[in-house]
Amino acid sequence: MTSSPIYIATVSAPTNIACIKYWGKADAHYNTPTNDSVSVTLDQADLKAVTTVAASASFTNDRLWLNGVEEDVSQNKRFRACIDGVKALAKEPERWKDLFVHVSSYNTFPTAAGLASSAAGYAALVAALAELMDAQEEYVGQLSTIARQGSGSACRSLYGGFVAWKQGTAAGNKSPWDNSMAVQIATEQHWPEIRALILVVSDAKKDTSSTAGMSTSVATSTLLQHRIKSVVPERMEAIEKAFLAKDFEAFGQLTMKDSNSFHAVCMDTYPPIFYMNDISRMVVRIVHAYNAWAGDIRAAYTFDAGPNAVLYTLEQYAVEIGALMLHYFPADSENYINRSDYANEVAAFELDSALLAATDKTGRSPTAGDVKRMYYTQSGPGPQVLDMDQANLDPTTGLNTYAP
Amino acid sequence: MTSSPIYIATVSAPTNIACIKYWGKADAHYNTPTNDSVSVTLDQADLKAVTTVAASASFTNDRLWLNGVEEDVSQNKRFRACIDGVKALAKEPERWKDLFVHVSSYNTFPTAAGLASSAAGYAALVAALAELMDAQEEYVGQLSTIARQGSGSACRSLYGGFVAWKQGTAAGNKSPWDNSMAVQIATEQHWPEIRALILVVSDAKKDTSSTAGMSTSVATSTLLQHRIKSVVPERMEAIEKAFLAKDFEAFGQLTMKDSNSFHAVCMDTYPPIFYMNDISRMVVRIVHAYNAWAGDIRAAYTFDAGPNAVLYTLEQYAVEIGALMLHYFPADSENYINRSDYANEVAAFELDSALLAATDKTGRSPTAGDVKRMYYTQSGPGPQVLDMDQANLDPTTGLNTYAP
Repeated sequence: MTSSPIYIATVSAPTNIACIKYWGKADAHYNTPTNDSVSVTLDQADLKAVTTVAASASFTNDRLWLNGVEEDVSQNKRFRACIDGVKALAKEPERWKDLFVHVSSYNTFPTAAGLASSAAGYAALVAALAELMDAQEEYVGQLSTIARQGSGSACRSLYGGFVAWKQGTAAGNKSPWDNSMAVQIATEQHWPEIRALILVVSDAKKDTSSTAGMSTSVATSTLLQHRIKSVVPERMEAIEKAFLAKDFEAFGQLTMKDSNSFHAVCMDTYPPIFYMNDISRMVVRIVHAYNAWAGDIRAAYTFDAGPNAVLYTLEQYAVEIGALMLHYFPADSENYINRSDYANEVAAFELDSALLAATDKTGRSPTAGDVKRMYYTQSGPGPQVLDMDQANLDPTTGLNTYAP
Repeated sequence: MTSSPIYIATVSAPTNIACIKYWGKADAHYNTPTNDSVSVTLDQADLKAVTTVAASASFTNDRLWLNGVEEDVSQNKRFRACIDGVKALAKEPERWKDLFVHVSSYNTFPTAAGLASSAAGYAALVAALAELMDAQEEYVGQLSTIARQGSGSACRSLYGGFVAWKQGTAAGNKSPWDNSMAVQIATEQHWPEIRALILVVSDAKKDTSSTAGMSTSVATSTLLQHRIKSVVPERMEAIEKAFLAKDFEAFGQLTMKDSNSFHAVCMDTYPPIFYMNDISRMVVRIVHAYNAWAGDIRAAYTFDAGPNAVLYTLEQYAVEIGALMLHYFPADSENYINRSDYANEVAAFELDSALLAATDKTGRSPTAGDVKRMYYTQSGPGPQVLDMDQANLDPTTGLNTYAP
C-alpha cells in the first residue's frame, strides 16, 4: 500500500481585545457586523492559539481536535467556510481541492469565557491553512475575510498592533461583503508602552453564546440601533486618532465608554443578557476611583462577552495597577500571575494609603477566589509560523498528539 | 404666658413602583423629567409613610424627624418647596404664612434602598400639609406639582391605582412646568387582580443617589437621548392601553423591557451606575424561565434605583410565584414574608418539577440571606387622613413622639 504524503503546517495566532465592540450581525450567512470595531492584538508570548493543520489523500474526513478533544465538524459551517475559503486561494488549488484536512488546536488560556478564544482559534486555522496551501491574497485583507467567516473578530487577529474590522458593504464588490475585513491601523511597534492586565473572573462557560446573544440584541434592543448609527462611527474615528497620537486619556475613556455601551445594549435586550457580574463591577468602581485619585486616566477597563476584566494601561502604571488589583483580589493559588518577574514587582509595591482609601468602595472584603488568575501582557504581532516540533498532529498518522 | 395653639394633621401615603421609569431631569430647579413615567400605587396596608405635620406660632423653626431621627432642614430646598407650595394654596393663606412647621414621618419599609421611600414621604408631607391647611387646588393635579418638587415620583403617590406623571412643558402655563403633574389613568378598582411581590435584596444605602445619578446620565449617556425621544413615548401609550385593557402579557413585557432599558442607560453612563446586583439578575433569569415554562407572561420584574426586585403578577399566579421565589431565596429569618396567610399558602405550595428544572439557571445554590424580606401587596388608594391617635407629634409640645 502506497501511503499518501501528509502535508503539515503549524502556526500560532494571537487573541485580541476590542476597544470598540462588535455586537450585532448585519448578515448571518456572511458573518458581517452592524458596526466597525477595533482591537489591540495581544502578545502570543502570554496568550495564543497553536494550530496544526494537515492535508492528505489518506485522510477520509475532515477532523478537528480542540484542546485535545475531538469535535464533530460535519455540521460546522464556519469550519467549512475557512477550509474552502483558503483552498480557493491556494497557489495550486487543484492540489488541495479534494484533500480532507485534520486540524488540532489548543489555547494557552481558558476557552469560551470571554477571552476571545474563537478569535485566536480561527485566525490560527486560517493562517495555518494559508501557510500549508501557500495561499495568495487577491487583495490585501482577503484572508481576514475568510477568518471572519469562522468567527467575526478572528479577522482582527490576523494582524498585530491596533487592528480595525471595517464593516464593509454587501454590494459594490466582486462578491458580497468582500470588503468586510481587518485593516491594521498601527503595528505593535507604534505604541510599545501599551499594556494589558487581564483578570480572569471565572472560567465557566459563557451564559449566552455571542451569536445567539447578538442576534437577540439586534431583534429586540431599541438602544442598539442608536449605538450602531450614531455612537460607534464617532468613537471609531476618535479612538483611531487617539491611538495614533498615543493619547491614553482619550483612548482609555473611549474604551471604557464603549465597553459600558455594549453591556448596556446587552441589558436592553429581551431577555436581557448579563455578561458582567458583581466582581466585574467591583473592578469598574476601583478603576474609576483610581483614575480620580490619580487625576487622569491611567487604567481603562473593558469587558467582552464574559465577566473577565481587561485593564489597558501604560507600562509606567502597570505595577501600581497590578498591586491595586492584587490588594482587592488576593491570590487564589500558585502561579496567580502569569509572569513571575511582574508578580514579584507587584507583590513588593507599596500602595499609597490615600489611593487605598479612595478605592475602597468595593463593599466587600478582599476574597481570594474572586479572581482566578491574572495575565499581564502587551501588544504583539499577527500569526507566526512554527517549526515541526510544535506540531499538534503526528506527521506520520495525521492524528492528534496534543493532551492538555 | 399664653401658649399658641398647635394645629396638627396626620396622613398616610403610599409608595409606587414605576413600570415606565423616570430617569433624567429636564429642569433641576422645577424638578421636572425628561420623559413621562407611570406607576402602580401600592396598598398602604402593606407599605406606607405616616406623616404628622403641625404648625404653631409657638414654633421657632421648621423641624423634621424621619424615622424618629431629627434631620437638618435649614438647607433643604425640597422640604421648603413643599411647605411654601401648600401654604400658597391654603384656604386662608394668611393664617399659615408666618407659622413654622414641625414634621414627623416614618416609613413601614426600608429607606433609601430603592423602595420609593422618598415618593411616599413627600406625598405624605404634601397631603398632610394640605389636610392641615385646607389647601384648594386651582386645577386638578396642582398638589401633585408640589409633591413633585419634593421628590419627582412623589407626585404619582397622590393617587391610587395606575398613575402617570406627565412630563409637562416649561412654557405655555401660568408658571413654568405647572402641567408637569400626576394624572390618574385608572383607579385601584380597575384591575383588582394585580399583585406585587417585592424582594428586598438588601437594605444598604443606595450606591448612587437618584439625583446625582440621573444628572450624570443626562450628561454622559448617549443612549439616554434615544430612550427619551423614541423609546418611552411609544411605551407610555402602549402600557396605558394595556392596563386599561387588563392585558397582562403586554403590560408585563413593557414593564420588564423598560426596567432593562433604564438600567441599560445607567450602565451607559460615565462613570457607570450599577443598581442591580447578582441577586437581581438571578431574579431576572428565573422570571424569564418561568414565563417560558408557562408559555405566557405571568410575572414581570422591575427594578428601581436599587437591587430590590418588584414582581408584578396576577392574583391567580401569586402563590406559585411566591413559592418559586421562596425556593430560590429561602427564608433568612422569622417574618420573612409580610403577610402570614400568604406565607402559609406559599410554604404549602408544591412546585411543578418541570418548572423547577426550567428555572434552575441561577448558577448558585439557594442561600438564605440573599433576599432579606418579601412584601406581598396589591394596588391601593392615594393618601389617607388618619386620626389623632396615629400622630407622630405630641399635640401639646409639637415634638416628635415616634421611635422605631
